[in-house]
Order: sequence, then C-alpha cells, then structure tokens
Amino acid sequence: MMLELIFMSSVLALLFAGYLARSVNSREQGTERMREIARAIQEGSMAFLSREYRTLSVFVLVIALILGLLFGLYVSASYMVGSIVSALAGYIGMRIATNSNVRAANAARTSFSGALKIAFSGGSVMGFVVVGLGLAGLLGIFTLLYSATPDTEILIAYGFGASSIALFLRVGGGIFTKSADVGADLVGKVEKGIPEDDPRNPATIADNVGDNVGDIAGMGSDLFESYVSAILASMILGVLVFGQAGLIFPMLLAGAGIIASMIGSLFVRPSGEPGSFQEETESARNALNRGVIVSNVLMVIAAYFVTMYVLDDLGVFLALVSGLVAGFLIGKTTEYYTSDRRGPVQGIVKSSQTGPATNIIEGLSVGMMSTVIPVVLVSLATLVSYHYAGLFGIAIASVGMLANLGILLSIDCYGPIVDNAAGIAEMAGLGKDVRKKAEALDSVGNTTAAIGKGFAISSAALSALAWLAAYFAIARLDVINITDPNVMVGLMIGSMLAFLFSALTMRAVSAGAFEIIGEVRRQFREIKGIMSGKARPDYARCVDIATRSAIRQMIVPGIVVIAVPVILGLTLGAASVGGLLAGALMTGFLMAIMMANAGGAWDNAKKYIEAGNLGGKGSEVHKAAVIGDTVGDPFKDTSGPSLNILIKLIGKVALMFAAFFAVAAAV
Amino acid sequence: MMLELIFMSSVLALLFAGYLARSVNSREQGTERMREIARAIQEGSMAFLSREYRTLSVFVLVIALILGLLFGLYVSASYMVGSIVSALAGYIGMRIATNSNVRAANAARTSFSGALKIAFSGGSVMGFVVVGLGLAGLLGIFTLLYSATPDTEILIAYGFGASSIALFLRVGGGIFTKSADVGADLVGKVEKGIPEDDPRNPATIADNVGDNVGDIAGMGSDLFESYVSAILASMILGVLVFGQAGLIFPMLLAGAGIIASMIGSLFVRPSGEPGSFQEETESARNALNRGVIVSNVLMVIAAYFVTMYVLDDLGVFLALVSGLVAGFLIGKTTEYYTSDRRGPVQGIVKSSQTGPATNIIEGLSVGMMSTVIPVVLVSLATLVSYHYAGLFGIAIASVGMLANLGILLSIDCYGPIVDNAAGIAEMAGLGKDVRKKAEALDSVGNTTAAIGKGFAISSAALSALAWLAAYFAIARLDVINITDPNVMVGLMIGSMLAFLFSALTMRAVSAGAFEIIGEVRRQFREIKGIMSGKARPDYARCVDIATRSAIRQMIVPGIVVIAVPVILGLTLGAASVGGLLAGALMTGFLMAIMMANAGGAWDNAKKYIEAGNLGGKGSEVHKAAVIGDTVGDPFKDTSGPSLNILIKLIGKVALMFAAFFAVAAAV
Repeated sequence: MMLELIFMSSVLALLFAGYLARSVNSREQGTERMREIARAIQEGSMAFLSREYRTLSVFVLVIALILGLLFGLYVSASYMVGSIVSALAGYIGMRIATNSNVRAANAARTSFSGALKIAFSGGSVMGFVVVGLGLAGLLGIFTLLYSATPDTEILIAYGFGASSIALFLRVGGGIFTKSADVGADLVGKVEKGIPEDDPRNPATIADNVGDNVGDIAGMGSDLFESYVSAILASMILGVLVFGQAGLIFPMLLAGAGIIASMIGSLFVRPSGEPGSFQEETESARNALNRGVIVSNVLMVIAAYFVTMYVLDDLGVFLALVSGLVAGFLIGKTTEYYTSDRRGPVQGIVKSSQTGPATNIIEGLSVGMMSTVIPVVLVSLATLVSYHYAGLFGIAIASVGMLANLGILLSIDCYGPIVDNAAGIAEMAGLGKDVRKKAEALDSVGNTTAAIGKGFAISSAALSALAWLAAYFAIARLDVINITDPNVMVGLMIGSMLAFLFSALTMRAVSAGAFEIIGEVRRQFREIKGIMSGKARPDYARCVDIATRSAIRQMIVPGIVVIAVPVILGLTLGAASVGGLLAGALMTGFLMAIMMANAGGAWDNAKKYIEAGNLGGKGSEVHKAAVIGDTVGDPFKDTSGPSLNILIKLIGKVALMFAAFFAVAAAV
Repeated sequence: MMLELIFMSSVLALLFAGYLARSVNSREQGTERMREIARAIQEGSMAFLSREYRTLSVFVLVIALILGLLFGLYVSASYMVGSIVSALAGYIGMRIATNSNVRAANAARTSFSGALKIAFSGGSVMGFVVVGLGLAGLLGIFTLLYSATPDTEILIAYGFGASSIALFLRVGGGIFTKSADVGADLVGKVEKGIPEDDPRNPATIADNVGDNVGDIAGMGSDLFESYVSAILASMILGVLVFGQAGLIFPMLLAGAGIIASMIGSLFVRPSGEPGSFQEETESARNALNRGVIVSNVLMVIAAYFVTMYVLDDLGVFLALVSGLVAGFLIGKTTEYYTSDRRGPVQGIVKSSQTGPATNIIEGLSVGMMSTVIPVVLVSLATLVSYHYAGLFGIAIASVGMLANLGILLSIDCYGPIVDNAAGIAEMAGLGKDVRKKAEALDSVGNTTAAIGKGFAISSAALSALAWLAAYFAIARLDVINITDPNVMVGLMIGSMLAFLFSALTMRAVSAGAFEIIGEVRRQFREIKGIMSGKARPDYARCVDIATRSAIRQMIVPGIVVIAVPVILGLTLGAASVGGLLAGALMTGFLMAIMMANAGGAWDNAKKYIEAGNLGGKGSEVHKAAVIGDTVGDPFKDTSGPSLNILIKLIGKVALMFAAFFAVAAAV
C-alpha cells in the first residue's frame, strides 16, 4: 500500500509538470524578433546540453562498466538509472524553461500577473520533474533491484549516478555561465561600449544560455542529487534501526513533500494587477512566500502523521522538523546578508567610496562573517536530530530540509526564466513599460536566486552530513578517531580539497573567458557590419567555444574528487577517508557560503548604486562596485556552487568503494 | 649536567645578543635629519609598546588571578613568567631594531656589506633574545616550580602566558601596521599625491612604526610562542613515554639549536663589496642562505647525538628531521608562489592587464592553490613522525622545525630593519647611490619576509598540532570520535572560527584606517604649512590613534578565542573541544597560508610592474596591480598572521581548562 502511495505521488508530480508545460507552451511567443532571439537561446542551451551529454555518456559508461565488474549488474544498472533520470530531468527542465522565457516576456506586454504566472509555471516544471523523476527512479531500483538482492551498493550507486550528472552540469555549467558572462562584458561593455544584452555582441546569446545552463540545469542537477542523497542516506541508516519500515519511510516523506509542494504552489498567484515597480516586486515576493509557507506548514502536519503511523517515534519527527527549520532560517540569513536594505550590503556600498580595494576587503569580510549563523544552525540541527534519533535522525533532518524541494526548486528556476525574459525584452526592443515589468520580475528573481543558493549549499551540507553518517555505518566505523594521524591527515587533505577545488574552478572561468574574448574580438574584426547592425554575429560559435572550454576545464577538478578518496582509502584506510569527508564537508561548506554570500552582497551593492545612489552609474563609486561584482561572479556562480558537488560527490565515491578500503587496511 | 648545559646555552644566546647589541649601538647614526626621523620612529614604536603593555598588564593580572584561584600559586606564577619573558623579549628586540635601522642607513652611505651586517646584527638581537629568554624562562619554571610539584598545568601556563602576549602583539600589531599603512597611503598618495615615506605625511612615522610593531614585536612574540609551545608539548608528552629524560630532552634539543644557530649566523657575511643592484641582492641572499644551511646541517648532526645519547631512540631523531625538512621545504614553496620570476606571480601580472577584477581573482586562486604542497608536507611530517615515535614524535617534529629559530628569526627581523633603513634614507634625502643600496637590502628583505611568514604559519600549525596531541593525552581522550555529533559540531565551529577571526581582523584594519584618514586630513587642514614643508606634522598623534584603535579592535577576536573553547568544553565536553581544536587548526592553517601567499604574490606582481614592465608605474596595468596589493595588505600582515595566534591560543585555553571539561561532561 505504501509503495503505491509513493508511486502515485511521483506520478502526480509528473502529471502536474506535464499539465504546466502544456499550459506554458500554449501561450503566444510575441514578435518575430522575440521568437528569433528565444530560438537562439534555446538552440544554444540545447547545444550545450547535447555536447555535455555526449561527453557524459562516455563517462557514465566507463563508470558503469567499472561498477559492473566490481559489484555486478544490478549496481551498474542502478548507477545508470540514477544518471539517466537526472539527465532527463535536466533536459526537460531546460527545454521548458527556454520555452517559458519568451512567453513570459510576451505576457509582460499586457499583464504583470500573467507574466509572473508563466515564469513560475515554467520553473515549476523543473521543480516537479526533478522530484517526480527522482522519486520514481528510486522507487524503481528499490522494487526491481534492491528487493531482489538487498545490496546497499545498489542504493549508493543510484546516488552516485545523480552525482555524476551534477558534476558535469553544475561544475561544467558554472564554468560555462561565467566564462560567457565575463567574456561578453569585457569586450562588449568595456571595449566596445555597448550595453548588456545588446544583440550586436556575439557572446550575448552565450551569456543568456549561461543563465539557463548554470541556474536551471546546474541548480536542478545539484538539488536532484541532494534530494535523492538525503532519501538514500535515510534508507541506508533507517533499515538498520527500523528494518523494512525504515526503508519505506523516507520515500513516503518525500511523497508527502510532493503533495505539500503541489498544494503550496497553487497559492502562488499575485493578487490583482499591481501598478508601480515597488508594488510589483512586493506582489511577486508575497506570492512566492505564500507558496513556501503553505507548503512548509502542510509538510510539518503530514510528516507528523506519516512518522507516527509508520514508525510511531516522535523523536524522528522532531529530527525532521529541526532540518526543515534550519533550512528556512538559513534562507533568512542569506537574505539578511545579501539584501541591499541591510547592514552588510550597505557596508560594502560605503566602502566602495574609498575605492575597489576597500570594496573587496569589505565584501570578503561580509562573506566570512556570514558563515557564523549557518554553522550554528547546522550544528543545532545536528545536535537536536542526533539527540532524538541518532545518526538516522541526522539523515532525516536532511530529508526534512529537502522534502519541499518541489516548490523550492520551482522558485529557484523562476529566477533565470525572468532574467532571460528581461534580456529578451531588452534585445527585442520592447517598450519601456514592458521592460519595467520584466525588470520587476527579474529583481525578485535576484533575491530568490540568492536565497536559493543559500538553500542549495545548506541542503548539500546536510545531505553530505547524512551521507557521512551512512559512511560510518557502511564502513563499520564505530569510531573515527582524530587522535589517529591517518584521520588527522584525512581531515587536513579534505579541507585542502575545498581550497584546491575553488582555485581550479576560478581559474577555469578565467581561461574560458579568455577564449571567448578572443572569439568575440575576431568576429567584430572579421564580420563586417556587426556594429552597425547590418550583419548578424555568429552566436552559435561562442556557445560552442564556451561549452568545449567548460568541459575541458572540468577534467582536473573531476578527477581530483574521484581519485583522492580512492587513493587515500587504499593507502591510509577507511578511517582516514572518514576524516577526508569531514574535512571537505566543513571547509567546503564554509567556503561555499562565504563565496555565495559575498558574491550576492557585491552584486546587490552594485545594483543599489546603479539605482542612483552615491553618484549612480558611471561614478567612481560605481566603478569600484563593478569590480567587486566581477570578483563575486565566479564566487557565487561557479566556485561556490561547485563546492556543493565536491562535498557530495566525494561522499558517494567513498561509500561506493568503502568495502575495498577495509580490505586494503587489513592487508 | 644536562640542565647546566641547557642553562649555559641560553645564557650564551643572551651574551651573544648583548654583544651584538653593543656592537650595533657603537655605530654612527648619520646626519641630524636621520637622527630626528629615527628618533620619531623609535619613540612611536616604544609608545605603541608601552600602551599595549599597560593594557596587557591588566589582562595578564586578571588571568593570573583566575589561574591562581583555580590552580594555585605555582601555575599563576608560571603564567606570569611566560608573559613577562615574552614581553621583555619584544621590548629588547624592538629597542635594538629601532637603533639598528638608522645605523644601517648610515652605513649604506659608505658600504653595502657594512649595512647588511648592521641590519642582520640588529635582527639577531631579537632572534637570540627570544630563544635565550624563552629557554631560560622555561628552565626556570621547570627547576623552581615543576620539580617541586610536577603539575602539568605549570608547563601549560607558561605557554599560555606566551600566547597572551602574542595575542596583543601579533593581532594588535597586525591591525596597527595596516591601519597606519592604508591610512597613510590613501590620504598621502591618493589624495595629496605625495610619495610614500614623505615626511610631510602625518601618518608616515606611524607607517614606519607599524613595520617594527608588526614584523618585529608581532613576529617575535608569535614565534616565541611557537618555540616554547613546541618544547612544552614535547615535554608534556615526553614524560609519559620516557619519564624524566623525556622532560629534559626537548630543552636539550633547543639548547643545541641555539648553538647551531649561533655558529650559522657567523657565516652570514657578504663576500667583498658588490657593485650593481643585482650583485648586491645576490650577495645578501647568498649570505643569509649560507647561514641557514650551516645551522640546519649542524642541527641535524647535533640532534642525532643528543637523541642517541639521551633517549637512544633513532625513531625520535627521524621524527625531528621530518619536521626540520618539512619546514625547509615549505619555505621553498612560499618562495615559489611569491617570487616574481615564477609562474604564479607572472600569472597575476598577466591578469592585471584585464583589470583589477581579474587580478584579484587570479591572486585568490594563487593563494588557494599554494595550500596544496604545505598541507601535503605537514601531512607527511605527521605520518612519518607518528610512525616512528607516536604522538611524542609529532611534538618533536615541531621542535625540529623550530630548533633553529635563533637564526631564522634573525633573518625575519632583518627585513623590517632594512625596510625602515630604506624609509629613513628616503625621508632624510640621502643620495641616490645610498638609496639604491638601501633598496637592494630591502628587496632581499621582502623575499625573506615572505618566507618568514610561511615559516611562521607552518611552525604555528605544527606546534598547534603538537599541542593538540598533548590535549589528547591531558584530557585523557584516547578517542575523539568524528561519528560523535559533539565532535562534529566542534569541528564545524572550529573551522568557522577561522573565517570569523579573519573577518573581524580585516574589518579592524578598515576601521583603524578610517580613523587615521580622519586625523591625517585634519592635520593637513588645521596645521598650516605642512605641504610646503614649513610646519612639522604631529606624528605622535597618528601613532597614538592607531594604537588605541588596534587595542580596541582586538577585544572581540580576543574574547572569541578564549570564550569559545571554554563554553564548548563546559557544555559539550572535552571531546567536542578536541574537534574544535582540530577544525580551527586545519581551516586556520589553510586560510593563513592562502592569505600570506596571495598577499605576497600580489605585492611582488605590483613591484614587478613598477620595475618598468607592462607599462610600469602609472599605467592601467599598474593601477590594477596596486588594487590587488592593497587587498593583499591586510591578508598578509594582519588576518593571515592573526590566524597563527588563533590556532595556538585556542589550544592553550583548551589544555589549561581541560580538567574542568571532564568534570562538566560527567555532571
């Protein structure tokens, strides 16, 4: 009965996504110019995906082969299902997001609420496809493979598959998006003096593609992974405590979360048709908030009944709530540190008056300072959930944080859609009033994006923590002893990996941007008439260059994450790898928050000045703020999010090969 | 017999320092103008110290009182001796360094070698006073207090005393030096367009005082602490393994190190009188290198005989060598990452061509990347030393790294002396030829300063690791289990402290600089005739403001380091504090290396461009590089070094109160 309920909720999510997709697709696309631009963005996004997927398929096949040889067919199959399902979710989400942007832009010509609704519906497709497919795939491998031979490796492999896709889409996508952005800006804005989103810039489509690639496919695959990881870790630990019920329970919670999210998302409808920019942003923000609050309340109620019915254990319920509350409060913290109405951003604004150096120093301090509250919140959630339900409680806390992913991811994906819509409105030369509406939507999208990043990081951290707890259980380590130098070395190297990974991804952006700059300069030089608007630049080539570069730059960080735990495990043993995971998790979590919040704060400080404060655009203060924002770009969109992958993937690799570490240590 | 040998070697160090001090003081000070400037710097430096010491004495008395109430008179006395001895070393070192700078500048009027010799002798006074007093004080509390009642707390308290002074001088000094530097530059160079070290700038003396305060008193107290910490941790662990011999052995090694350093320092004499700038820097570098190599070789030989004679344990000798080798190689790594002839700095130079943002991103990547090799080296030293000699081996490795502190600190202190000498030559308007000689000395000083920072960090890390090992033993924790959520929370909070501490100290610099800027502007406005050179600015007031500000800004970070381990220990128990120490150590070590090397690399990238490359001074590339250097200033001179204090002081507090954590956990 319970399996049927889980199955039904995942089907419901997919039906809901299908319904929304149809309703978005039925809308008008607007003028010929709009269609043309939207087509270029969609083609570019799909070109990126298809090239990524070609490389990915080789990667996945190689890993699947290795897993097949080591663990047999079922594990290999589960790995493949995990990757295929995640890749499919990314594909569907991207397709519909790039259908929605132009339709939202067109709707903004007549109605603000209509535009908001389309953008949110487009984002919801991604949100519900991710949870629906994620849960359905998991249920599939559970009933077809795991029930036949209850091998924990089958569960682990599913998460490993999701991780592999996230590596390519989040890290690769993050490198792509900022290479294109920086490349487009440096030649377009700085050298040629043309505005952002100007269709004469050959990299402008790549820049808009980047928003989809990074914030839809990248974010989606990252959260897909956190979502299934949280459920899987709870299953792995749950069966040890509660037997069969412990296996079903986490999936049932996820099913309840889907229903809660669906109901909540029905409450996202702005009231009436607001007039001013202020009213519009207010209205959009309230609508989105309402949806989240309704979902959260429903989820808590549902979780109570599910927990009491299935496990009859109030402690487990409290563990779940601790995760949900921590996630919510971390979002509020992010909002505080990146809102232009608060002290931190105002401090950066003030420091921009004495030049770029003080702007940078202040931004870095804000980022570092912003780690304190999230660490305290995660610590409290850890202590509370462990107190009430042991290691299983920690895993359940991460499920609590992620149960409402359906609606949370919908809101995340709303951001890049309206960002694209604003870009299309600009490029297609729509009227001032339309652009104002699009920008109001975009402004809200910027806030939700910042909060979404904070959520992505903390859910990654909590799911990695759950996975670490599962590692303790699987590697049969009752004790990972810091006083053991192997563990100490593992901790040190794990921490160091966060620094190495950040350095590699930041550098990848520079290298990618460098290639884009060369190409854009070449096109301006060789294709006559671009600047006068007579000739069309070769957009596709810029997309192609950025894609290839991103894939190439991903190789080294990818190898590092996979190779280091294996090498350490085979030489210094399983306990040392436990230290490695803990070190990477802690330092990676801190760095990721620091980078995301510093980046968001710099961004909003710049926007605050651009809104006409302290001299506004073009002033010396503004120039200083732009430099800070440029430093913040790879922070918040590449290196920061990439660390989510580091801390999760490293845990997957460790769990997958844990059996061999024990053998190696015994030899 | 062995105690007598230890006593003699420390007396020898002090006699040597006295001889050098006399020989420096007997030199000529040069023109009236030079004397006047030097006097202002010396007065400022001493004014800083006396104000710091006034606040410090209250702090020390309060802590001594608490320790007296909790642990009795001996522990309290040991704490006081530790602080007084460290404070005394700082006072003597500062006094003689500020005597040396003007005499080195004057010697540069006739002879390069002569100037080098004076500067190195001046630095050596600090070097040998630190090791001489450090060892003598330790021997004193050992024979007078510990031998009477062998209470481990007596040993811990001595280190805690040294830590307290380091907190004030290193953190306070770091804040002072960069507040003054940034304040002086922003008004002088940027607003008034007058060169650096121009006597018309009211903050110029404060800036020169800052070099002494940060790099002599701060560096000295930091390394004093590492030095005694390494010896103390070895004694605490040594007695558990080898009984009485384990107590004496580490002090005997330190005594051997003093002799090795003294002999080595006799080899620091440039050959002949070089002509060109190139030849001069080459000659100075070779002279200093020769001294270090001779000392290291002698130390290894001496250590072998001492170890075999006292403990008859080859493993302990190998542990010691692993620390010494790791320290040496980490120095080389620092040199690689901060030398303008190597890839990393050249990458920053190249990225400055596309503006400040890319310069910053590249600099941060270089800093992060530069953590990899030091972490691997420290990991190897940990594994090797533990393999051969257990936890005691780890402590002995840190003694190996620090045994030659006498000569290493001499070279460190040579840097700020020649920096000041160059400043005096500039301010006193000495001839071009003299200034060239002074700058050649200074250029070498910059390299040694970068290496010195790397050494200070890695020795801090290794001595903190030794202290962590001692904590395991003292808190009777055979196991600090990462799978215990209290430990996990300790790890997370410890890591977070490194971020918090960096944010607080960076902000302190901004706040301090802000006050200086206000004062300098006021003086330019209110004191007529400063710009025409007719009126003398009020230098002392700037020094005073920077000092007060530094002390005020130090309060919060100081309280955090002391309060967090105590609170955590009393609530979550001793194991959680073990996690806290490990987390702070790992992340603090990484951040400190990152900050020091990024700062050094930015600095040298700027200097490379200033030497006439890529457009030279005043070009857009140069402007970008200056911004990077300004961001790097608080990195390398304030926040980075302050982290050394964090990771060591937190261990002192933990060990000091370990007995209470066990009680609290039992309640």
